[in-house]
Amino acid sequence: MNFIGSNSRQSTAHKPASTRETLAARYSSVRRASETLCKPLAPDDYGLQAMPDVSPAKWHLAHTSWFFKTFLLNPFFPSYGRFHPQFEYLFNSYYQKIGAPFPRAQRGLLSRPTTEEIFRYRAQVDEAMEAMFASVAEALWPEIAARVTLGCAHEEQHQELLLTDIKYNFSINPLKPAYRDDLPAPNNGANMAMSWIEQPAGVQEIGHDGNGFGFDNESPRHRVLQKSYALASRLITNGEYLAFIEAGGYRRPEYWLADGWRAVSEQAWQAPLYWEKIDGRWSLFTLGGVRVLNENEPVSHVSFYEADAYARWAGKRLPTEAEWETIAKNRKVRGNLRESGFLHPAPLMDEVHPAQLFGDVWEWTCSAYAPYPGYRPSDGALGEYNGKFMINQLVLRGGSCVTPAEHVRASYRNFFYPADRWQFSGIRLADDR
Amino acid sequence: MNFIGSNSRQSTAHKPASTRETLAARYSSVRRASETLCKPLAPDDYGLQAMPDVSPAKWHLAHTSWFFKTFLLNPFFPSYGRFHPQFEYLFNSYYQKIGAPFPRAQRGLLSRPTTEEIFRYRAQVDEAMEAMFASVAEALWPEIAARVTLGCAHEEQHQELLLTDIKYNFSINPLKPAYRDDLPAPNNGANMAMSWIEQPAGVQEIGHDGNGFGFDNESPRHRVLQKSYALASRLITNGEYLAFIEAGGYRRPEYWLADGWRAVSEQAWQAPLYWEKIDGRWSLFTLGGVRVLNENEPVSHVSFYEADAYARWAGKRLPTEAEWETIAKNRKVRGNLRESGFLHPAPLMDEVHPAQLFGDVWEWTCSAYAPYPGYRPSDGALGEYNGKFMINQLVLRGGSCVTPAEHVRASYRNFFYPADRWQFSGIRLADDR
Amino acid sequence: MNFIGSNSRQSTAHKPASTRETLAARYSSVRRASETLCKPLAPDDYGLQAMPDVSPAKWHLAHTSWFFKTFLLNPFFPSYGRFHPQFEYLFNSYYQKIGAPFPRAQRGLLSRPTTEEIFRYRAQVDEAMEAMFASVAEALWPEIAARVTLGCAHEEQHQELLLTDIKYNFSINPLKPAYRDDLPAPNNGANMAMSWIEQPAGVQEIGHDGNGFGFDNESPRHRVLQKSYALASRLITNGEYLAFIEAGGYRRPEYWLADGWRAVSEQAWQAPLYWEKIDGRWSLFTLGGVRVLNENEPVSHVSFYEADAYARWAGKRLPTEAEWETIAKNRKVRGNLRESGFLHPAPLMDEVHPAQLFGDVWEWTCSAYAPYPGYRPSDGALGEYNGKFMINQLVLRGGSCVTPAEHVRASYRNFFYPADRWQFSGIRLADDR
Amino acid sequence: MNFIGSNSRQSTAHKPASTRETLAARYSSVRRASETLCKPLAPDDYGLQAMPDVSPAKWHLAHTSWFFKTFLLNPFFPSYGRFHPQFEYLFNSYYQKIGAPFPRAQRGLLSRPTTEEIFRYRAQVDEAMEAMFASVAEALWPEIAARVTLGCAHEEQHQELLLTDIKYNFSINPLKPAYRDDLPAPNNGANMAMSWIEQPAGVQEIGHDGNGFGFDNESPRHRVLQKSYALASRLITNGEYLAFIEAGGYRRPEYWLADGWRAVSEQAWQAPLYWEKIDGRWSLFTLGGVRVLNENEPVSHVSFYEADAYARWAGKRLPTEAEWETIAKNRKVRGNLRESGFLHPAPLMDEVHPAQLFGDVWEWTCSAYAPYPGYRPSDGALGEYNGKFMINQLVLRGGSCVTPAEHVRASYRNFFYPADRWQFSGIRLADDR
Repeated sequence: MNFIGSNSRQSTAHKPASTRETLAARYSSVRRASETLCKPLAPDDYGLQAMPDVSPAKWHLAHTSWFFKTFLLNPFFPSYGRFHPQFEYLFNSYYQKIGAPFPRAQRGLLSRPTTEEIFRYRAQVDEAMEAMFASVAEALWPEIAARVTLGCAHEEQHQELLLTDIKYNFSINPLKPAYRDDLPAPNNGANMAMSWIEQPAGVQEIGHDGNGFGFDNESPRHRVLQKSYALASRLITNGEYLAFIEAGGYRRPEYWLADGWRAVSEQAWQAPLYWEKIDGRWSLFTLGGVRVLNENEPVSHVSFYEADAYARWAGKRLPTEAEWETIAKNRKVRGNLRESGFLHPAPLMDEVHPAQLFGDVWEWTCSAYAPYPGYRPSDGALGEYNGKFMINQLVLRGGSCVTPAEHVRASYRNFFYPADRWQFSGIRLADDR
Repeated sequence: MNFIGSNSRQSTAHKPASTRETLAARYSSVRRASETLCKPLAPDDYGLQAMPDVSPAKWHLAHTSWFFKTFLLNPFFPSYGRFHPQFEYLFNSYYQKIGAPFPRAQRGLLSRPTTEEIFRYRAQVDEAMEAMFASVAEALWPEIAARVTLGCAHEEQHQELLLTDIKYNFSINPLKPAYRDDLPAPNNGANMAMSWIEQPAGVQEIGHDGNGFGFDNESPRHRVLQKSYALASRLITNGEYLAFIEAGGYRRPEYWLADGWRAVSEQAWQAPLYWEKIDGRWSLFTLGGVRVLNENEPVSHVSFYEADAYARWAGKRLPTEAEWETIAKNRKVRGNLRESGFLHPAPLMDEVHPAQLFGDVWEWTCSAYAPYPGYRPSDGALGEYNGKFMINQLVLRGGSCVTPAEHVRASYRNFFYPADRWQFSGIRLADDR
Repeated sequence: MNFIGSNSRQSTAHKPASTRETLAARYSSVRRASETLCKPLAPDDYGLQAMPDVSPAKWHLAHTSWFFKTFLLNPFFPSYGRFHPQFEYLFNSYYQKIGAPFPRAQRGLLSRPTTEEIFRYRAQVDEAMEAMFASVAEALWPEIAARVTLGCAHEEQHQELLLTDIKYNFSINPLKPAYRDDLPAPNNGANMAMSWIEQPAGVQEIGHDGNGFGFDNESPRHRVLQKSYALASRLITNGEYLAFIEAGGYRRPEYWLADGWRAVSEQAWQAPLYWEKIDGRWSLFTLGGVRVLNENEPVSHVSFYEADAYARWAGKRLPTEAEWETIAKNRKVRGNLRESGFLHPAPLMDEVHPAQLFGDVWEWTCSAYAPYPGYRPSDGALGEYNGKFMINQLVLRGGSCVTPAEHVRASYRNFFYPADRWQFSGIRLADDR
Repeated sequence: MNFIGSNSRQSTAHKPASTRETLAARYSSVRRASETLCKPLAPDDYGLQAMPDVSPAKWHLAHTSWFFKTFLLNPFFPSYGRFHPQFEYLFNSYYQKIGAPFPRAQRGLLSRPTTEEIFRYRAQVDEAMEAMFASVAEALWPEIAARVTLGCAHEEQHQELLLTDIKYNFSINPLKPAYRDDLPAPNNGANMAMSWIEQPAGVQEIGHDGNGFGFDNESPRHRVLQKSYALASRLITNGEYLAFIEAGGYRRPEYWLADGWRAVSEQAWQAPLYWEKIDGRWSLFTLGGVRVLNENEPVSHVSFYEADAYARWAGKRLPTEAEWETIAKNRKVRGNLRESGFLHPAPLMDEVHPAQLFGDVWEWTCSAYAPYPGYRPSDGALGEYNGKFMINQLVLRGGSCVTPAEHVRASYRNFFYPADRWQFSGIRLADDR
């Protein structure tokens, strides 16, 4: 396994593994959080999959349990039996070394096992995990601790997907149901001027620094040579993006990459996902239902193609991931993350420079998602976690309003295809200097 | 509206309308039956739609209520309000005159309204219908009685679809869940010889005779000129169909219509739907789960293309719908219908001639589904009930093991596309004489 | 082989076979006609296939030769060798008993054999056919004569397709090339009133009467029982069809069969094929290039769905094929056929009743293309000629402006899918009486 | 315009423009070469387009003329008229600023203009270009020279495509025609051991150095920081690739990127494009027809996914484009390029280190095709030449056996999608040190 903390190839000092109590508590807390997120759902909502990219809520609940079952209980606590012989097949996401997975696009067609059975499966896995925490030999603990840590981070990723997938699933329903009707509305904010964080040319180190957990794709830490550049002090707002739309942004091919223009044409894009013009007024579908567009909120649910076209129209460009990390790496993780409770991007409240680096929306970079120099995935099925996706996708940075705060960091690399729009993804500009 | 009993264009005598009590009782009984059929479902099952041709159980429950709401309550009992302004859109199946319906292929994506809300919708419609029965003016009663009668027949059609759709939805789940695990298994039966019912040439009358309810597509009753022919005394069995498979039936284009051969090739058909070879032995997926193939059962879940290819391989042909009705029209409706409780075709128990005309499986005819001479659909949206589907489909006759006995009759015309296989559809041969 | 003249199952008297000289002359004349039709083509045009339904001109030239090679030379004149071992595969249209054919949709991808080689192939086949005519034993002559007669009719069918396919192939080119720029323009005609040919109820005989050649699908001649009806005295004109368009015909689902409405929606039909509104004025693409719409011409290039919708809008219906044939069977074949040289439907010039039964456009009937009672295709690959297409298509009657006069007759059954529009296909109404 | 030689943003010294005579001679030579390459074609071959990615030969001939017409004659020699008003639309490849281009996938459906007309169009453009060379004002010459130079490079790119497209177009024909039957066969070669070119860590300069012509995507020249690495001394051979196939390479997902494995599964890849097992022996389709596989030839027609999977199987990786260029930049362009006349990769003849850097096959790198730091496309339609394709593609280096020698250089960046296989594309390994 190749995530930091257990990766013997890392030169950075190895931190002592979490104590069993600490890790058991984190395990329990993460597991409960998944279930809490499902509280607002009706029984009917759990099985829904409105497009191949999203998964049903019940599948997320089952797959995250499958992960602990497959990578912890099976090798280290074999006395725990199989819940059902087919679960290993049904809830395998993409680990070919475990076996050919059930087709992703058909996850929504599995009414059985029922949601109730899946909650029982979760409970059974949790019970076994607790027994394992209490009883496993000390010699196995470091590897177990590393895998549990990974499993918790994995479940947090699925918590974010659970929310973005529910949002998408609900959005296609003409009733436009709200995931929660008690979401706090952020202050309206203000239209703050954009300024630029200047960075001189030079060599920078990027990648995970070995402190705490990191995914294998953040390593090895390595040096990059950069020209001088500037990074925007804040995210692009709905109001700014609206100016692009009104300037004919979606009708003028000159702002678009060729593949982006094809996406615009074939999918008839005219605005970000979830924007809808109702009686001449732009509104947004949110996890709290339909709301009138707030021009001071960061724009969200744009594809890379749209982010790139916006930047070209604005006479700027998107940052590379190294440029982003260079600015972010010495800054504290704070912002409109999941804990703020908005579950939606929020207007900027006060002038900080740079602002909104963490939270609100994942920020598209222009960097292809590729292995860092010297990267090698680990042996075994866990080596499939990140490495095999390093093609055709782009890196996003900084977390979003549905990312848990403890989950994200400056070296964190998220990745999606350039046409993807159902994540909370937005725009921060960069420029040459 | 153009079904018999209310259709002023029909020359047959108008039968007195049911008394209010009788019809109210029938209404209530049909409505309860739909709900009883859903009893074995888990909450997770109600929303499932595994292919565009099938509908979720909850949609069937809602749409049948919508029918009474739209065609009875709205015009005749307007004091009943709308349950939700969007239900008229969401649960309209195909009545363009009511408005553009919600896309059929996306019915499974509607987690809201929830199943619970749909049961409340049903209850509210039922309450209003009962109030209407009790209070409506006598002058309106004939039209109301005619529409309620149609609405009950309509709901019975959806009860059959509800079962065939659940069967399909469950079949694609690797867990192969049973709709019911308490279904009685029929006797094994015996391999009975086939004989032929001979019919001399001549003019026959077919179509609805005006006694009792009939759909508009069964009228007008009219005369047809037939050559002499013979109709098989019973249905083709699994064992007989297996001989066709083993003779290379699915690999030899000479038995197939050109469009049928394309279906075989493109969809990689190798046996009827729901047949699966497990460890060298043929098994069937049924509403009671997976069972070993019983060679004496009538073959089911074959397309018209397969029925036609089988007939050609056997040196016979399929009957026309008039040939079928000529033999059936003076015979009593009895057989393995829904009330027998098998919910599956059953082997022939004793020698009767002809046997299995009603129940077990719908019998493919070679007749294109077309209007009878002089047919005109009624004005208004109810005219869309049958008429607009009179193209590209073939007529099937006789009802199946999931058809209520009171629903079917000799003049009943069911219709499906030639490649459809998810209904209980089978084969009876005919031959020239 | 099951076409009339050689079919021993036919009860009609067998006519003496053509003399060798007569048939050799007909063979030669038909073969030359195919080549004459290609004269206006540029070398670039021969390979074009703009949609799967059409075939390249060079493929028609090759396939018609393949037909004589496969069904005459191979069995009866084996001294003639193979031109190229792969031609049997490449130019087989759909005869599965000969072998799996080259995929239809890819015919346009065969730049080799070149057109020049295909003309050489034709010449070689012709030479061998002539040698066979001169030398074959008398005992074989009846069978040979029957097959040559069929082969000539087959080649005439491909001559018609050659013209309709070129028309389609050229139509999608923005340059809108004319197949011929020297086509005579018919007189403008006049807007003649429609009257009705009345036919009382009764039994009629339809099907081929055994005089001269007929395809197997025209047999057996048989009796049909008809209600009284009326057939329109002439075809529907562009002007009449335009009124349907202007009445919102393509926007109002109530006129359409459900499958037809889906075709309208999915394919965005707004007018017949080849109609285009240029600067506010309707024009047509013809084999002579783009022309202004002539309102007195019969409407052409409509699908069955459009013909049926027009009839419903007009308060009428389409005739059955038996109704059409009953009126046509005692009438002379004359009209705007290929020999008139217009290669386009022509306005009605004088009042005849009924007019335009033959020529101008194939007339959609509402009859599904199905076997006549007692029909059996012949043994061998020639049995695939017609029989295996008897599903999903509708019968058209009467020939068109690109049908050779000697090719068509009252019992002739053409057939196409209900959405097909690239043939010269139009509308004649019928009505109940 | 942003290619080197005219780009004022380049800091490298501006070289004096070619003299008129020299450039006119180059123009003429390049133009003649396109026509020479078409000599082996039959008239039937010119219009063929067997998949959307390839273009017909006649389209290449027309589009390259359109390029000179649009970017030279229209602005600088307006007295030259339009050949046909629609040519500007039909032969625009992708320059949206010129207007929406004719759909790429339908280029093969344009039988008109005929090949003969296109040759006349070429001649007319050439005549006008010569007149322009002779008469244009000196002040315009630098810009004109720059554009002509670009146009010649552009036409050379299409010459390469013309050959790879013909190869693909012919490959799908069951007759397997040879483009030329007189191609020289290279010596069988020998199985030479692979060694490694070692490169220490450090900063390197890559990108066009300002000497001679370069495309805009090769600039700006810039510094990159590299770890130590090694580059393989030669290309991977068919024999080596065969070992990967025989080791189950196409059946084992662990060697593949996730998107690559999907391509393998969906497209049923089992070997490189053009490999076919005939009677148990591997053969290749080449521009000279079908040949037995030569194990010593470099493997070709592999996608990036296959190259990457091979490297993973071999325990190595693909080089970055900077790693490749670092080794290549001080080496002479020589190798099996178009001038060698093989039009096919050739076995290695003698031990050179590194060998085969130029020619034989384009070498897949693992670098996403992205703008170099500071890259900005030029204003105007010519800015669409390269920049808008900088997404979703990977860089290939070194030219192939169908690349003209004068066309390629160490800084040359070719780019294709990771699933593309119809180019001469192969594999050179790299490794960490």
